[in-house]
Amino acid sequence: MKAWTITEPGGREVLKQKEFPEPSPKRGELLIQVKAAGINRTDTLTRQNTSLSSPYPILGVEVSGVVVANHSSDWTLEVGTRVAGLVNHGGCGEYVTMPANRAIKLPDSLSFEEGAAIPEVFLTAYQTLYLLGELKEKESVLIHAAGSGVGTAAVQLARQLSDATIYATAGKPEKLKMADSLGADVLINYREANFDEVIMEESNGRGVDVILDFVGASYWDMNLASCALDARWILIGTLGGATVERVLLAELMKKRIALEGTLLTPRSDDYKAQLTKEFSKEALPLFNDGRLKPVIHSILGFDELPEAHRQMEENENVGKIILSFEY
Amino acid sequence: MKAWTITEPGGREVLKQKEFPEPSPKRGELLIQVKAAGINRTDTLTRQNTSLSSPYPILGVEVSGVVVANHSSDWTLEVGTRVAGLVNHGGCGEYVTMPANRAIKLPDSLSFEEGAAIPEVFLTAYQTLYLLGELKEKESVLIHAAGSGVGTAAVQLARQLSDATIYATAGKPEKLKMADSLGADVLINYREANFDEVIMEESNGRGVDVILDFVGASYWDMNLASCALDARWILIGTLGGATVERVLLAELMKKRIALEGTLLTPRSDDYKAQLTKEFSKEALPLFNDGRLKPVIHSILGFDELPEAHRQMEENENVGKIILSFEY
Repeated sequence: MKAWTITEPGGREVLKQKEFPEPSPKRGELLIQVKAAGINRTDTLTRQNTSLSSPYPILGVEVSGVVVANHSSDWTLEVGTRVAGLVNHGGCGEYVTMPANRAIKLPDSLSFEEGAAIPEVFLTAYQTLYLLGELKEKESVLIHAAGSGVGTAAVQLARQLSDATIYATAGKPEKLKMADSLGADVLINYREANFDEVIMEESNGRGVDVILDFVGASYWDMNLASCALDARWILIGTLGGATVERVLLAELMKKRIALEGTLLTPRSDDYKAQLTKEFSKEALPLFNDGRLKPVIHSILGFDELPEAHRQMEENENVGKIILSFEY
Repeated sequence: MKAWTITEPGGREVLKQKEFPEPSPKRGELLIQVKAAGINRTDTLTRQNTSLSSPYPILGVEVSGVVVANHSSDWTLEVGTRVAGLVNHGGCGEYVTMPANRAIKLPDSLSFEEGAAIPEVFLTAYQTLYLLGELKEKESVLIHAAGSGVGTAAVQLARQLSDATIYATAGKPEKLKMADSLGADVLINYREANFDEVIMEESNGRGVDVILDFVGASYWDMNLASCALDARWILIGTLGGATVERVLLAELMKKRIALEGTLLTPRSDDYKAQLTKEFSKEALPLFNDGRLKPVIHSILGFDELPEAHRQMEENENVGKIILSFEY
């Protein structure tokens, strides 16, 4: 089968299509004929990872496709079922194996390209808002980087599953416009206003119940100031630095804040299976009637992976970059 | 009725017994004839609180006694029931009112003096370990200030309710000995060893699942180093400073730590009622067969409140200081 790998770690010029043997599913796994693959930051990092040595892996961690063999005991995933999900690597090949308990069954209304745009961002947003943040009906949430992949998914989930009051920050008007169209209530351009001041004014001094924090150090004081009593502050990125110079513990105590650090990728297979199951039950049906929708920036042909990496590395995208195997 | 108040904010010389009218229970409250009162740090702070003005309150926030009137719908708290619990103030008077849903029914095996030694430290320890820390069977826990009131209660609860592996720190041999006798597994004198190094060695590099942190800033880095993956780090005091100079967010994320700040006193009445209910169900029966026991430093007569305050202010006690109304 055809698949994308690298000739050596490096720039986009090292990306190369090669022939690989078709992978064999182990017990508990599916063999999937890939129809589309989502491009992620981790793909460009793997491409440049100088600690890798030959033979190099097939790139890609997120796919949609059709089940062609089922070696699991889940008989509902019969041959022909349309699925999407995260794989450990191998997503940019014509066939890939996936643990059956990580497969999301694609609603009929979604194309494969749309399906490949769901797993990473929606599972991350779901995990952060619900498993960690315990966002409840009608609570309020602050979503930073609201125009990012996870941000756009989080805004939609908070709107559709929780009817939350959503404060969205971003630095560009088109990203705020996107957040607005997906259901954010209060839009804050962080280049023009201090988000904590806006939140305190809009919430009559109460603050927010949950924060999705991709930013870390540079927003620390403003995030702290934005917290309501009993807030859950979920730290999932450090785009604004990872070292906070001065932390006032008394504030964390007085507001009874739960600050939770997390990373999705290193979680156990069991955790990922549980997350997939809960997401499939609570959120997936809402894709069918269009209340939730994958946000796609571009759909490229299988041969265009270097262009996909370029768009990712130059931060051109609002929404997912998708490689289609059917073009 | 006789009760202890102050003549003005100040030192122990301002403590004064005075005649007060007997309080009247409102709907939902009990009237209690007080038999013993626990002395707490908040009592000495109230005594010195210059923002108070006349008429000054009756001191005391923790009592045991006998129900003499029940204005609640809980018919199980009939007149004559022996109870203990937290009151908003008024504990050092012959009668006090208490919300009925905050009353703990005293097991027959406990004296009133023992009963008055339970509510504050055991409810705080229970809340911290279980409602916040979600300590599970056979997990591990690091308990700082293990010779303190809350520390001795936490060691016992972790031992008896969870069969946890308990790491206990203190700075004096007699406090460590107490922790040992209550069931701690690993005793660490913080003057002689770095607790994080001991923990990492004893746990084969795994770390602990829950930390009860009364210390804050000065232990920050060692607490962080002591955390296992998915640790819950509960911040309930800042004896070692409230400002951390340098916080590495990447560590919090990599270990997926939940850092939770809390204070018991400002919680809502509903929360306190719920905590009392759960504690009464899960922990109270274990006092009957002696698996849990109040730790008492001294029992003083009603007239000896100034001496009780002295012992508290000079940190003489390992365990509770109790004022008995029957001496």
